[in-house]
Amino acid sequence: MTFVSRPSGRAVDALRNLRLTRNYTKHAEGSVLIECGDTKVICTASIEEKVPGFLKGKGQGWMTAEYGMLPRSTHSRMDREAARGKQSGRTQEIQRLIGRSLRAAFDLEAFGERTLHLDCDVIQADGGTRTASITGAMVAAYDAFSKLVASGAVPAMPLKSFVAAISVGVYQGMPVLDLDYVEDSGCDTDMNVVMNDAGHFIEVQGTAEGAAFDREGMNRLLDLAQAGIADLIKLQKQALGLTA
Amino acid sequence: MTFVSRPSGRAVDALRNLRLTRNYTKHAEGSVLIECGDTKVICTASIEEKVPGFLKGKGQGWMTAEYGMLPRSTHSRMDREAARGKQSGRTQEIQRLIGRSLRAAFDLEAFGERTLHLDCDVIQADGGTRTASITGAMVAAYDAFSKLVASGAVPAMPLKSFVAAISVGVYQGMPVLDLDYVEDSGCDTDMNVVMNDAGHFIEVQGTAEGAAFDREGMNRLLDLAQAGIADLIKLQKQALGLTA
Amino acid sequence: MTFVSRPSGRAVDALRNLRLTRNYTKHAEGSVLIECGDTKVICTASIEEKVPGFLKGKGQGWMTAEYGMLPRSTHSRMDREAARGKQSGRTQEIQRLIGRSLRAAFDLEAFGERTLHLDCDVIQADGGTRTASITGAMVAAYDAFSKLVASGAVPAMPLKSFVAAISVGVYQGMPVLDLDYVEDSGCDTDMNVVMNDAGHFIEVQGTAEGAAFDREGMNRLLDLAQAGIADLIKLQKQALGLTA
Amino acid sequence: MTFVSRPSGRAVDALRNLRLTRNYTKHAEGSVLIECGDTKVICTASIEEKVPGFLKGKGQGWMTAEYGMLPRSTHSRMDREAARGKQSGRTQEIQRLIGRSLRAAFDLEAFGERTLHLDCDVIQADGGTRTASITGAMVAAYDAFSKLVASGAVPAMPLKSFVAAISVGVYQGMPVLDLDYVEDSGCDTDMNVVMNDAGHFIEVQGTAEGAAFDREGMNRLLDLAQAGIADLIKLQKQALGLTA
Amino acid sequence: MTFVSRPSGRAVDALRNLRLTRNYTKHAEGSVLIECGDTKVICTASIEEKVPGFLKGKGQGWMTAEYGMLPRSTHSRMDREAARGKQSGRTQEIQRLIGRSLRAAFDLEAFGERTLHLDCDVIQADGGTRTASITGAMVAAYDAFSKLVASGAVPAMPLKSFVAAISVGVYQGMPVLDLDYVEDSGCDTDMNVVMNDAGHFIEVQGTAEGAAFDREGMNRLLDLAQAGIADLIKLQKQALGLTA
Amino acid sequence: MTFVSRPSGRAVDALRNLRLTRNYTKHAEGSVLIECGDTKVICTASIEEKVPGFLKGKGQGWMTAEYGMLPRSTHSRMDREAARGKQSGRTQEIQRLIGRSLRAAFDLEAFGERTLHLDCDVIQADGGTRTASITGAMVAAYDAFSKLVASGAVPAMPLKSFVAAISVGVYQGMPVLDLDYVEDSGCDTDMNVVMNDAGHFIEVQGTAEGAAFDREGMNRLLDLAQAGIADLIKLQKQALGLTA
Repeated sequence: MTFVSRPSGRAVDALRNLRLTRNYTKHAEGSVLIECGDTKVICTASIEEKVPGFLKGKGQGWMTAEYGMLPRSTHSRMDREAARGKQSGRTQEIQRLIGRSLRAAFDLEAFGERTLHLDCDVIQADGGTRTASITGAMVAAYDAFSKLVASGAVPAMPLKSFVAAISVGVYQGMPVLDLDYVEDSGCDTDMNVVMNDAGHFIEVQGTAEGAAFDREGMNRLLDLAQAGIADLIKLQKQALGLTA
Repeated sequence: MTFVSRPSGRAVDALRNLRLTRNYTKHAEGSVLIECGDTKVICTASIEEKVPGFLKGKGQGWMTAEYGMLPRSTHSRMDREAARGKQSGRTQEIQRLIGRSLRAAFDLEAFGERTLHLDCDVIQADGGTRTASITGAMVAAYDAFSKLVASGAVPAMPLKSFVAAISVGVYQGMPVLDLDYVEDSGCDTDMNVVMNDAGHFIEVQGTAEGAAFDREGMNRLLDLAQAGIADLIKLQKQALGLTA
Repeated sequence: MTFVSRPSGRAVDALRNLRLTRNYTKHAEGSVLIECGDTKVICTASIEEKVPGFLKGKGQGWMTAEYGMLPRSTHSRMDREAARGKQSGRTQEIQRLIGRSLRAAFDLEAFGERTLHLDCDVIQADGGTRTASITGAMVAAYDAFSKLVASGAVPAMPLKSFVAAISVGVYQGMPVLDLDYVEDSGCDTDMNVVMNDAGHFIEVQGTAEGAAFDREGMNRLLDLAQAGIADLIKLQKQALGLTA
Repeated sequence: MTFVSRPSGRAVDALRNLRLTRNYTKHAEGSVLIECGDTKVICTASIEEKVPGFLKGKGQGWMTAEYGMLPRSTHSRMDREAARGKQSGRTQEIQRLIGRSLRAAFDLEAFGERTLHLDCDVIQADGGTRTASITGAMVAAYDAFSKLVASGAVPAMPLKSFVAAISVGVYQGMPVLDLDYVEDSGCDTDMNVVMNDAGHFIEVQGTAEGAAFDREGMNRLLDLAQAGIADLIKLQKQALGLTA
Repeated sequence: MTFVSRPSGRAVDALRNLRLTRNYTKHAEGSVLIECGDTKVICTASIEEKVPGFLKGKGQGWMTAEYGMLPRSTHSRMDREAARGKQSGRTQEIQRLIGRSLRAAFDLEAFGERTLHLDCDVIQADGGTRTASITGAMVAAYDAFSKLVASGAVPAMPLKSFVAAISVGVYQGMPVLDLDYVEDSGCDTDMNVVMNDAGHFIEVQGTAEGAAFDREGMNRLLDLAQAGIADLIKLQKQALGLTA
Repeated sequence: MTFVSRPSGRAVDALRNLRLTRNYTKHAEGSVLIECGDTKVICTASIEEKVPGFLKGKGQGWMTAEYGMLPRSTHSRMDREAARGKQSGRTQEIQRLIGRSLRAAFDLEAFGERTLHLDCDVIQADGGTRTASITGAMVAAYDAFSKLVASGAVPAMPLKSFVAAISVGVYQGMPVLDLDYVEDSGCDTDMNVVMNDAGHFIEVQGTAEGAAFDREGMNRLLDLAQAGIADLIKLQKQALGLTA
């Protein structure tokens, strides 16, 4: 692997420093502050003892996600979505992605008629907020389910597989891992990848805003993502005190 | 390529019949009815002689898309979004995807301070409405730009590359091309791919709702999409009377 | 009856060509494309096996209508109502008119606790979209009820009387029938009339935007409407294969 | 004319007592309380020194109306539209009707680039609120324009013709004038008629909710309305101190 | 108490003329027009035979308030909140204040599972509309409860204490009682006080928009309010025919 | 001062531990995490180089505030206001209060045509979030203005006076300072007080939800608030490195 000069100074295949702080706030059943370099997201998991209407009486659970950014989490202040009276298309896209990713991580039929609400709120943004949200929400959800197991409400951790997410992109012609804001802004192609600990794909969302990319470029991006996600899942398990 | 039994009876790599009817309605600068099997979408391209605020005075144009489904385009009637007072997250996701795809097809700096509005309205849905919208909107946009060229308002067709889109998925363990509704509903994995006529990727959006898929599965899906899109672009060019 | 020079070249008492295409789309219980000259509206009738809250348990049914225009069904593109987040006053006025007209055509107490949703979506507009919607929705509703009769869910066609609608107006001082867009725009007075096959009035909505009209003018407009609607109802019955 | 037993005890062609109180509130340029029996509506006319965007620079004025009901103006309390966050279809229909009627009464090209806002707020409802609103708004608008004339801002009263409105309907088979709430509820057919002082029609809005009515019934309803409106216009002129 | 020159010519501790007209409209269980000088508010109390969801089955009642201003109740016309599609922050603040104040006046556990809706609609504004609303709503609520007592639905008047409200402020350095619009506009400090007939505080809402005020100023404002409210409560009781 | 048993174990006149962390996030011109016991609020101050329309061209600045709570900042999860599509009345009341308070602290005519946006987002709630928001926003605003002074854009700190806020209430009959959530829930009376460093009142908002309180109670509450706010302002100045 050659090294190009990234604005961050990182190697093309280097993740930013990751920090996972569990029990970050005191009320939620799971509460994690995830920091990926300067990107900081509070991920909480809240248990509700009922399911949405379309699942009532089916004996299974549900997981759903919401995403938000504090107005000044970004370089220039954004309008507050609550004040504007609606969530942007981007916000909805992201929270749908987080929800699907987490539903792939847990067995919805193994925790009764409950809903797990995942709230991912960006405190400070520096690129990669949606992938950080997924990686952090995984840990928050695990903590919340641990409480249900500990209380006897659920017999065993309803885990299918750990999931984590990372962005990859083509920066000045070179595929790189885990783009920060500066790299992301100057980037032709951006792909968000969600994988599980078997190395399988949950979601792939690639967009070539600048220059379309060929099949070989696609392959190199997927290689980078695969390696990065494997590392992230190790860090998730360490944070949870599990033998990885 | 082996043949599995698809509900549609098609080969795994077979597209549905495609029909492109130009000048379908009389007011729009471009107006195309695209029929992919039983999926029918009206795609219109409307030229507006100004750009959104964020582009004013920059000497370039803009392209944007909106998407809708008639309430009874589907098996059971859906609520009308205008009556509910908001577009769903799915609708917004789709119209953002159409807009990005078409902006990759045309050179925004080559048609002046104009906006091209693409409206994709599903008359009848049978799977693949978002990819049909992209494929049809490409032809509608081409027609609209042709009028600008013919009138002398724009010196030459502002084309970067043709784009088309298709869905691929894993149906009962087999990767298949161009899923209809029945196949889509019974499908573990669904990927929408947008490519150009150089065979490069514009967008890849894969979701493993049921079972995560490995790298080899990913590769076979991309192969199917690549071949299918090449065929679609031939059909677009034929419909436009261009030597493909 | 004298003949003035209408922009359309039609006689003052001449309807535009009417075409009714049944089973236009495949999912709805009733689906009709109505074409009145260049005005084209898709009318679908969808059966729902329940009634709104205010009728629950009363043993009767309900019929309700919604109306929409594709953004580029018109000369210049209109904003999409779903994107703006609300239906205009005009849209609401029209869908309330369609609903009342169709409820006058069928016996709400003769088809059980069901709702018939009528969706009238304008594909191409050239004047008279609201009256075309009523005339087309009548046929779509008839088809939908036929299915309920055929399946035995309803004992007999719950028909009170056929209804159809037409516009009349005063164009350059002359009362004329069935105005197209050019005539409508240059017209002082516009009246939409809904009648049944007994020649009785269901709705009369006349507006003198330019010059108020006297009692004699009113009488001539009503004469024109009465004759036009009688013809429309013949065409509805022919389309349905009924001996008119 | 025979006399049937109306719940109100009135003759079939009798109006309710009408009272017009000018200068009812102190801020508006025109402010009228209209009382038609127990129906009470505050009609204000407010002058704004600009026109809506679509008229800017055309040298003409505009008139527009809004309508509302206090939540407990009715028998049982209605939801407040401001709290629900939207105006009902009925409200929009009514305020569009009031606006069109008043624009037929005044010459929009004779009072400069100004907007006259008519606000009709129902304090107490007992049937006929929309027609009372039109009749009252006519007087409020006249008062407001008088101030513009008095100040010299407008050279002469920009009047085309007085307008007033009344409802007629078929109550137990008999056409009657000026329905109150009890009569209106038990009524098969309801028609609102707006006319000017030349006896010409401005608007006719008839709905046969129960039984369709024939041409002869229509004629008798129009006769009643014509006579009633002539009386109303006399009362408007008296209230304004004009020699009728 | 010295006398400064107030625009109104009133003494610093003088209330405006107060008029309470009961049974102002005919449908509501309680209906009061309150006039405080030129400020006029219609206050209605409507009884609903159920409680909001959060109180269902608890055997107690609820009181809630809504507030509105007619668009031209003010010097220049305000937008209609129903047309804008939302209530302003000011409106919500006021109706929350009215609701809390009235809930302090009556015993929610003494009138069964019923809701009393208080609607305060400003017909003409000249300062002090929120305090007039509270003072008037007290009388309307009393009348509505009297009907429940008279009908035997409630055993006794569920009164805790009479409440009334007044504004006080610092006008040109002098604390004054009951500010009208002109005084309010030129005022540095504005405080709305709600008290009961024991002379105790229910609500105090003071805002120093211009100059902050010290503890002594606070004390003088509270003295003025206390005396004014005692007078208002006497007037409420007189209007209700109670021996004050 | 006697000591009652508060759930928190604090003396009746004891503040919770206060921590002010400046530069908490990196993008905002001012960014403060304020922790009052377990209540944690991120307060950012963002400078925008323009003013709202109503101030354009007047040569003065503006300050405005928004407030939000993360959905799981509270004991049980609240709906996300951005998802519900509107801010609650409580939210609007609070952000109006914060805005007014901060506009009393700074001289709007001394920092040019700029807007300072204050965003107060509650990360963890344990009572007193609105008063903590004001106290924290004061420091964030000071930091933001310091940057304008440092860059020369503004000649001197546009300070009128420091402001801070605290809640006081009557808990089991005893007036206490700085209520936490448990105390607040069990409290009859709640008053939020905003004062400046001259000991003058900016805002007083007292509500007796349970039992009305007399003048003497009011005086003791104001005493407690006055002392508490003096301490808070000392802590603000220390945090800013100013000699208090």
